[in-house]
Amino acid sequence: MAAVALVQGASRGLGFEFCRYLLLNKSQAAVIATCRNPEASQHLAALSAQHADRMTVMKLDVSREDDIKRTAERVKADFGKVDLIINSSAMLHPSGKGETSLRDVSAQAIISTLTTNTVGPLVMAKYFAPLLQKGTGAFGQQFPEKEKQHSGIIVNMTARVGSIGDNAFGGWYSYRMSKAALNMATRNLSIELGRGRSKIVCVSLHPGTVNTDLSRPYHRNVPKDKLFSTEYSVQCLMKIIDTLNIDKTGKAYAWDNTEIPW
Amino acid sequence: MAAVALVQGASRGLGFEFCRYLLLNKSQAAVIATCRNPEASQHLAALSAQHADRMTVMKLDVSREDDIKRTAERVKADFGKVDLIINSSAMLHPSGKGETSLRDVSAQAIISTLTTNTVGPLVMAKYFAPLLQKGTGAFGQQFPEKEKQHSGIIVNMTARVGSIGDNAFGGWYSYRMSKAALNMATRNLSIELGRGRSKIVCVSLHPGTVNTDLSRPYHRNVPKDKLFSTEYSVQCLMKIIDTLNIDKTGKAYAWDNTEIPW
Ligand SMILES: NC(=O)c1ccc[n+]([C@@H]2O[C@H](COP(=O)([O-])OP(=O)(O)OC[C@H]3O[C@@H](n4cnc5c(N)ncnc54)[C@H](OP(=O)(O)O)[C@@H]3O)[C@@H](O)[C@H]2O)c1
Ligand SMILES: NC(=O)c1ccc[n+]([C@@H]2O[C@H](COP(=O)([O-])OP(=O)(O)OC[C@H]3O[C@@H](n4cnc5c(N)ncnc54)[C@H](OP(=O)(O)O)[C@@H]3O)[C@@H](O)[C@H]2O)c1
Repeated sequence: MAAVALVQGASRGLGFEFCRYLLLNKSQAAVIATCRNPEASQHLAALSAQHADRMTVMKLDVSREDDIKRTAERVKADFGKVDLIINSSAMLHPSGKGETSLRDVSAQAIISTLTTNTVGPLVMAKYFAPLLQKGTGAFGQQFPEKEKQHSGIIVNMTARVGSIGDNAFGGWYSYRMSKAALNMATRNLSIELGRGRSKIVCVSLHPGTVNTDLSRPYHRNVPKDKLFSTEYSVQCLMKIIDTLNIDKTGKAYAWDNTEIPW
Repeated sequence: MAAVALVQGASRGLGFEFCRYLLLNKSQAAVIATCRNPEASQHLAALSAQHADRMTVMKLDVSREDDIKRTAERVKADFGKVDLIINSSAMLHPSGKGETSLRDVSAQAIISTLTTNTVGPLVMAKYFAPLLQKGTGAFGQQFPEKEKQHSGIIVNMTARVGSIGDNAFGGWYSYRMSKAALNMATRNLSIELGRGRSKIVCVSLHPGTVNTDLSRPYHRNVPKDKLFSTEYSVQCLMKIIDTLNIDKTGKAYAWDNTEIPW
């Protein structure tokens, strides 16, 4: 059966580039691109028109559990399995800029950031785990031993600033907290879904600092050679995904395949 | 000026015992006990009647930013400063039992757990940081050098299961994620509030497994000598608090004063 990859948060930025990469470089794979407002993403509509035989766009707002449930039912009906899910959607803060100090913190803004960046990916796992368990292990690298093989892969896009141990500068309360909690979700998922006959590999990946809308307010502070194109970042991340196996589950890796401390 | 300690989440369990301990063992300290429903806690009312000169009970639901703001204004008017804040309130899950598997996960329950366990303590820090900066360093251990002295201390009650690195068993998604994100808040606060002339020490503390309502559903699985009384746990934690200084800020410690990995 052909490989099935689902990219959640595909309207822009890295999510969009993951779709493009998969269509161009994984010629056997069907690509499901989800976003909360398909009508608004002309890029995505154009890409899907260009690859109508292999690409499907579905509407999914990751902050709505019923959207996730409904989409999982549709994917089950149409594809019967998933081999790879990439949760790419996130925000820095509802205002578009991370808190520079405690004064900028508000309960409502943190909750809304946590809802999208943290709760969303976990609820995705809840509804899609059964489909990933039906996966045929089309992504990653399989061990020869059957008992070490995986059926599917979950990638949660994290950020280096979500590392508690690596945090030397502070600030960005909502975003940092959302990614630390997401890393805990990754770890928990790797344990629960790493058991049994149908194993799901689950990792957090940090893309580097990438030229997208999310980081736009900060681009002028980033040395040119440290600001990656989405193409370069996705190339690096897909190289990591291509070598994932059950021994690598439950960890956070950066674009250069180094492990990030919790 | 006399020491001022505020215990947030004081109606039951460890929060209540912190109040009792402070009244009995810190004879110079005024104790502010906050809880969301003072009428319902007869223990707390009795304790406060017994120590009417030193204890004040204030109503504060930690999931309501306006409650926190209002209480900070009242504490400012009545006391002018705070030396120690202990954020003790938390829940395992709205149902009272942690998720045993992904099937039990719901967006609403995670959000509500995060709101109480994680967002609440951070918003406490937002409104009380100015009062802690007016603190007179009455708790912890002061360095002789003026530039290393602290004015106040924030203690966020964490849990060992909130350590991502230490997570070997999975489960309890909401609670684990809420405490991992709380640890990030602690770390971020220690950086922002550790600068300048009025330093605030900020740590996460794990009380051990303690005989309270929170852990009640699991007591029968805990060996008797591993299930602490609130008295014993608070004694251990106050011993740690008594030796806190700015060099120990930004970390998570267990009841036995060992550091917990992130
Ligand atoms: N760019 C960086 O430097 C950087 C660094 C570290 C980590 N990351 C991580 O990499 C991932 C991708 O970031 P990016 O740079 O590609 O960001 P981006 O260009 O700002 O794109 C964010 C994406 O998230 C989607 N989204 C937001 N809220 C959503 C919701 N409720 N439901 C569904 N989709 C939602 C957006 O959709 P709409 O178009 O509908 O708004 C958009 O497609 C994120 O997890 C981010 O935290 C990025
Ligand atoms: N007990 C353990 O084994 C254990 C282990 C590790 C960590 N901890 C941590 O230690 C701390 C204290 O736990 P505990 O064992 O003492 O728990 P507990 O006996 O269940 O008490 C929980 C307290 O939190 C309060 N609370 C809950 N939601 C609140 C809200 N929205 N606003 C204000 N107060 C709220 C409760 O108030 P009401 O009376 O109004 O409900 C109660 O006073 C928690 O942070 C917990 O995570 C405990």
